[in-house]
Amino acid sequence: NNPMDKFFAEVDKAVPASIDLLRAAVSIPSISADPANRPDVVRMAGFLAEQLENLGCSTVEQRALGKQPDKPDLDLPPIVLAQYGEDEGKKTILVYGHYDVQPALKDDGWNTDPFTLTIDEETGRMYGRGSTDDKGPVLGWICALQAYKKAGIEVPVNIKFCLEGMEEYGSEGLDDLIREEKDKFFNGVDAVCISDNYWLGTTKPCLTYGLRGVSYFNITIAGPAADLHSGVFGGTVHEPLTDLSHIFASLVLPNGTITIPGIMDQVAPLTDSERSLYQNLTFSMHELESALGSQTQICEGVEETLMRRWRYPSLSLHGIEGAFSASGAKTVIPAKVQGKFSIRTVPDMEPDHLTSLVKNHVNAVFEGLGSKNTCSVTCLHEGRPWVASPDHWNYRAASTAVQSVFGVSPDLTREGGSIPVTLTFEQELGVNVLLLPMGRNDDGAHSVNEKLDRGNYVEGIKLLGAYLWEVARVET
Amino acid sequence: NNPMDKFFAEVDKAVPASIDLLRAAVSIPSISADPANRPDVVRMAGFLAEQLENLGCSTVEQRALGKQPDKPDLDLPPIVLAQYGEDEGKKTILVYGHYDVQPALKDDGWNTDPFTLTIDEETGRMYGRGSTDDKGPVLGWICALQAYKKAGIEVPVNIKFCLEGMEEYGSEGLDDLIREEKDKFFNGVDAVCISDNYWLGTTKPCLTYGLRGVSYFNITIAGPAADLHSGVFGGTVHEPLTDLSHIFASLVLPNGTITIPGIMDQVAPLTDSERSLYQNLTFSMHELESALGSQTQICEGVEETLMRRWRYPSLSLHGIEGAFSASGAKTVIPAKVQGKFSIRTVPDMEPDHLTSLVKNHVNAVFEGLGSKNTCSVTCLHEGRPWVASPDHWNYRAASTAVQSVFGVSPDLTREGGSIPVTLTFEQELGVNVLLLPMGRNDDGAHSVNEKLDRGNYVEGIKLLGAYLWEVARVET
Ligand SMILES: [Zn+2]
Ligand SMILES: [Zn+2]
Ligand SMILES: [Zn+2]
Ligand SMILES: [Zn+2]
Repeated sequence: NNPMDKFFAEVDKAVPASIDLLRAAVSIPSISADPANRPDVVRMAGFLAEQLENLGCSTVEQRALGKQPDKPDLDLPPIVLAQYGEDEGKKTILVYGHYDVQPALKDDGWNTDPFTLTIDEETGRMYGRGSTDDKGPVLGWICALQAYKKAGIEVPVNIKFCLEGMEEYGSEGLDDLIREEKDKFFNGVDAVCISDNYWLGTTKPCLTYGLRGVSYFNITIAGPAADLHSGVFGGTVHEPLTDLSHIFASLVLPNGTITIPGIMDQVAPLTDSERSLYQNLTFSMHELESALGSQTQICEGVEETLMRRWRYPSLSLHGIEGAFSASGAKTVIPAKVQGKFSIRTVPDMEPDHLTSLVKNHVNAVFEGLGSKNTCSVTCLHEGRPWVASPDHWNYRAASTAVQSVFGVSPDLTREGGSIPVTLTFEQELGVNVLLLPMGRNDDGAHSVNEKLDRGNYVEGIKLLGAYLWEVARVET
Repeated sequence: NNPMDKFFAEVDKAVPASIDLLRAAVSIPSISADPANRPDVVRMAGFLAEQLENLGCSTVEQRALGKQPDKPDLDLPPIVLAQYGEDEGKKTILVYGHYDVQPALKDDGWNTDPFTLTIDEETGRMYGRGSTDDKGPVLGWICALQAYKKAGIEVPVNIKFCLEGMEEYGSEGLDDLIREEKDKFFNGVDAVCISDNYWLGTTKPCLTYGLRGVSYFNITIAGPAADLHSGVFGGTVHEPLTDLSHIFASLVLPNGTITIPGIMDQVAPLTDSERSLYQNLTFSMHELESALGSQTQICEGVEETLMRRWRYPSLSLHGIEGAFSASGAKTVIPAKVQGKFSIRTVPDMEPDHLTSLVKNHVNAVFEGLGSKNTCSVTCLHEGRPWVASPDHWNYRAASTAVQSVFGVSPDLTREGGSIPVTLTFEQELGVNVLLLPMGRNDDGAHSVNEKLDRGNYVEGIKLLGAYLWEVARVET
């Protein structure tokens, strides 16, 4: 008789309550990128702090972080720090998650209101901004501990929670707090577990041991003092958007090749043994196509596709601030445009070096344009790539937990996205970090119609609980 | 004793009322490009119809135009048709104007609410969307007729008004109406006067005898079904915005050179006699710089600059719909982007031929990109260029009116902007069309902080009244 069976049964019984909890969280538009939503981000922190207090955490703190560096009048949202259990005979797991979300407007193309959790009963898909990134997983930990309680099973590890509200906007203030609390709140942590990524496909769980980093850039081209009428001024004035378009086209080719000189020289060469890791993964190009909703993939093969996602850099153009972006046909010459793009980074790329390669390239291209406008490049935020060892006990415990909940061995994967804190925890605390995803690769994080499947939520709660159980038992 | 002196005195006495009228008109956000504002556009038509009725027009009609072609559920705003005077012994002048405005949001960079007329008492500048384009001039006609009435002077010409509400969105429905009413409402028109452009500089009135046309294009690049997370998909999928950036860069150089093959071959060659027209114009590069608020002009000389504005085509990139356009740092791969640009056209360019040159070029460039996305190009609207004869009695009457109000001879100019109806009136009614501007070249039409100087409004009202006076007297 496995005590976990009782735990699993309690999770199943609590499904309506767990979904209600997620619904309440999704209804708070905690968008960190938009200063207008800052009160909602703060409200979301309070919501989580209350949940953690109700669980019986011994300390729950909403740690203030001061002002936002790029907006000196704006308070950063707090980091929620909480401790569950203080038994010196138990291992201590640090759980990190984030309670802020990406921007979302119904008009972006959502089928439902992004901040109303909407369940499609046929498919079990639960739509809402933050459902999978990262409110579902964060609440998953809370629901798991609630189920332990209801099952009358003592949680066999201590847990420290660190939940931040600026992950989608550069994790401002987080690294400083980790360094500051390294020997205080974070003292005694044996390993870290983060549930903030996705299964490789849509059917099989995975453990993730690597992440790309990201450096986000802004190119500002400015000329006239105000927007101009293209009839009156077209042909007589250097237009900032023309300059920017030429710079954009100089960064990346349609086949994904980055054309900024020097970047590919920084990428660690592919070894034969690394190549062999790509041969037994539960992934099909069909799953990619279905996630894309199109057949616009660059490569035809799984291996090459996953290498491009995991171990090669990529450059994405995101958009332009200041140009005409609405529907209709406005004949404006925008006076000042800000081009946004980011580069996903991999070992052995160095952010500072990357930034200087980008600046040198953009400045050289702009110089060559012969424009009288001004051009400046800034790196808005950066996070290094990370790779961990999947042989660590933390990974083995998670692997056993996957086996007990899903009846399969997890894929061992890397991710194309970035969770910069992963590297900070590893470096500052000197412990292993595990990424244990809850959602699927087609969840649409950062996109319209973001969703979390009900099955992934419920089995994910079981997985998080089983992981804690196995952590207490695994050979170290 | 010039009867016009009494008229001028009445205009001066009525300044507060004239400004109140403009304030009321500016407060109606009659943005034709945004379907959400359609009721405001309709409300603006009603506002003008009421004014025209109060003036004593014999017929005032708000002519329905059916549905908007690209939005089959949306009614077009009406065209206001009104007749003032029906004396067969008098000439009949057709007055055209438009009561719709460009989009405007405070957040675009306006110093004041765009829909609240705000007067800077020191400079006399009256800020507000539509103040100069084209509500000020339209109300100018109404104020001029009111002043005639108060002065007890009989208006020496008949006037037919044709005021439309879709000028800023392709003048949908107008050409059809003109053709339909050619021998009905427009029967008997001797000449047309349009006040919807600007002085060449900021100090001297002008009469305008030429306009560039405009063809507005939309390039749609679509790939994935929904926006994607750049971490998960970056490097593995053809990104629509990358494709679009390469196409944008293939259209125009930073020095204004259009790089679509074949376009410059269509431009009428510059003759020596035409060149001589550019040598005595009241315009300085300083005025251009001050209108730009920067020193980002492409040419250093007045002649070359004005030729580029008036008699050469230009291509302006306006922006992108569907990409990330807000502040902040969203790491999205936009699923579908629509690039907007327009080409200002001159004799002897043919719109259909231009569209096919544009489509061929864009399709060829896209083909060369090797992208799996889809690309389509459409021409959203087009208007031909126009040139008239400034020796016509209509221009001579206006020239005398300028002399009597401002004490100077007007510059004879062309314009870089497009007023497609000009050509339609000329062609359909077979009469001379005069452009008689009220505002200055630094008014910022279509831009943030659009303004009309109080002096231009007041003297403009006098000019419109004096023009009617001279039309009745000029040798034909
Ligand atoms: Zn996340
Ligand atoms: Zn995220
Ligand atoms: Zn206009
Ligand atoms: Zn306009």
